[in-house]
Amino acid sequence: MQGEVTAFAPASVSNVSCGFDIMGFALRGAGDRVTARLSALPGVQIRSIRGSSSEVPRDPAANTACPPVAALLARCAPGRGIELDIRKGVPVGGGIGSSAASAVAAVVAADALLGTRLTEGELLELAVEGEKLASGAVHVDNLAPSLMGGFILVRGYNPIDVVRVAVGPSFWCAVVSPDVEIRTEEARKILPRTVPLRDVVAQTGNAAGLVAGLLTGDGSLVGRSLIDVIAEPARRHLIPAYDAMGDAAREAGALGYGISGSGPSVFALASSEEGAARAAGAMARALRNTGRECAVIVSPVHAPGASVIP
Amino acid sequence: MQGEVTAFAPASVSNVSCGFDIMGFALRGAGDRVTARLSALPGVQIRSIRGSSSEVPRDPAANTACPPVAALLARCAPGRGIELDIRKGVPVGGGIGSSAASAVAAVVAADALLGTRLTEGELLELAVEGEKLASGAVHVDNLAPSLMGGFILVRGYNPIDVVRVAVGPSFWCAVVSPDVEIRTEEARKILPRTVPLRDVVAQTGNAAGLVAGLLTGDGSLVGRSLIDVIAEPARRHLIPAYDAMGDAAREAGALGYGISGSGPSVFALASSEEGAARAAGAMARALRNTGRECAVIVSPVHAPGASVIP
Repeated sequence: MQGEVTAFAPASVSNVSCGFDIMGFALRGAGDRVTARLSALPGVQIRSIRGSSSEVPRDPAANTACPPVAALLARCAPGRGIELDIRKGVPVGGGIGSSAASAVAAVVAADALLGTRLTEGELLELAVEGEKLASGAVHVDNLAPSLMGGFILVRGYNPIDVVRVAVGPSFWCAVVSPDVEIRTEEARKILPRTVPLRDVVAQTGNAAGLVAGLLTGDGSLVGRSLIDVIAEPARRHLIPAYDAMGDAAREAGALGYGISGSGPSVFALASSEEGAARAAGAMARALRNTGRECAVIVSPVHAPGASVIP
Repeated sequence: MQGEVTAFAPASVSNVSCGFDIMGFALRGAGDRVTARLSALPGVQIRSIRGSSSEVPRDPAANTACPPVAALLARCAPGRGIELDIRKGVPVGGGIGSSAASAVAAVVAADALLGTRLTEGELLELAVEGEKLASGAVHVDNLAPSLMGGFILVRGYNPIDVVRVAVGPSFWCAVVSPDVEIRTEEARKILPRTVPLRDVVAQTGNAAGLVAGLLTGDGSLVGRSLIDVIAEPARRHLIPAYDAMGDAAREAGALGYGISGSGPSVFALASSEEGAARAAGAMARALRNTGRECAVIVSPVHAPGASVIP
């Protein structure tokens, strides 16, 4: 057993327009780092949180990094204690899986620290404990890609059944995160509770079309499928310059555009790194024209998942 | 221009459990044959209907074979007339695309007769005219596979966007058609008008999972995805021995089981021809144990579409 272990877990885009609660993919170059260390105090403590200007709760009962580690301890090392240093690289409330990245990095670090060598499926189950805290519901469309990398389809929730969608290297993503915060729990409250059957048909057609397009490398099909008839109509008004950024992305040649998670981040897919960079620049300019600032990520759609940092 | 042309269009399984209104695939060995002949009378007439014990309307305004041909004439040969001989090989009201097969065979025969050489997309548009008559709504999940063959995803309806899903040769299908009739229009009336968001998430996950499984040859994923939380709960009671047939199919090793179209036909998918034949036999026995008769089809999931018979 090592004295301390640090793990990295990436940010991620979830929902992906037509894949509400069932799709997500990891992003390269942005994520949280969590260091786990054995502690004399039983249970989980947070020693430090760095890298976030927003308020991240230090109370272990309120920070998504802690419940997964507590569940791991309860299962594999009852009576022992772990303390965590969290370095946020994902903005809180930004819609790119901040709470998921913390939960995944923490449980991956703790697993390595304790030498418990759990499977991906077991780690995912534990990480879910943190996500319940963040959104009040079990959803794994950020957790699974942050843990496993790549593009993940959550085929079902009962039981959790995650499927890796083998996306080729030609799909790239641009993410723009405006400097406003949307709380996932609030963004869920404004969703419709029921959906007209006609819209279900549209949403299932697009979800199946997106997966077919990604698997067969059909960029046009991917673009035509990136339509969200459920969450976007309810949430778009929360995001500054939403339409202007979408128009800018499409004019820059993006395949499609939508809300990342519950926003305010937005994403555009493109068929090359250059195309994604062009879309990112165009979206950022459209936002800055309204006087707001943003962070920008350009990433392949197939990016690595969580890992222990040697 | 030939004196007469005969075309064949296959039966098809639509909905495919989780693909309500958006998925369908052609069946091998069952379908309608329609002969088109120039007539002195302008417009479309039906000269004969054979092969069906059910009542198939001879009135051109009520038979799905006629509106597509009328639309073709109006578009490409105004003032001319065509008469049709229809040989039904698909039971009416059986849930395997009887009306679609007639519409497709008729328009393919008329297109060849007139030498108009329309594209697949144009033929599909015309065939939709017949389907409106059958169900009171535009849906193409039987028409498109009957015309184009193979497994079809209807990505969207506005505009109609059909995508061929390249299914490998290892997926087979068993269809059992009990000797009861369900009218598509009636079966649509009992569907829910709205769907709880939770069920939308389940349905989209399964629809995307089914397409991913078919494209990657993952039979287990195909089986896990064949769950219908929308139409099956509303329609299962219309089908005799529905649960017994499903249990029998699964015990015989089928990947999954569900309602074909709006029933009463049911289908099971299997990963070999032998597996599909075993499932077909088991389902038929389960039905016959209740005193009912049925017709049985065993077909690859990738079967040919409509064609002119030389």
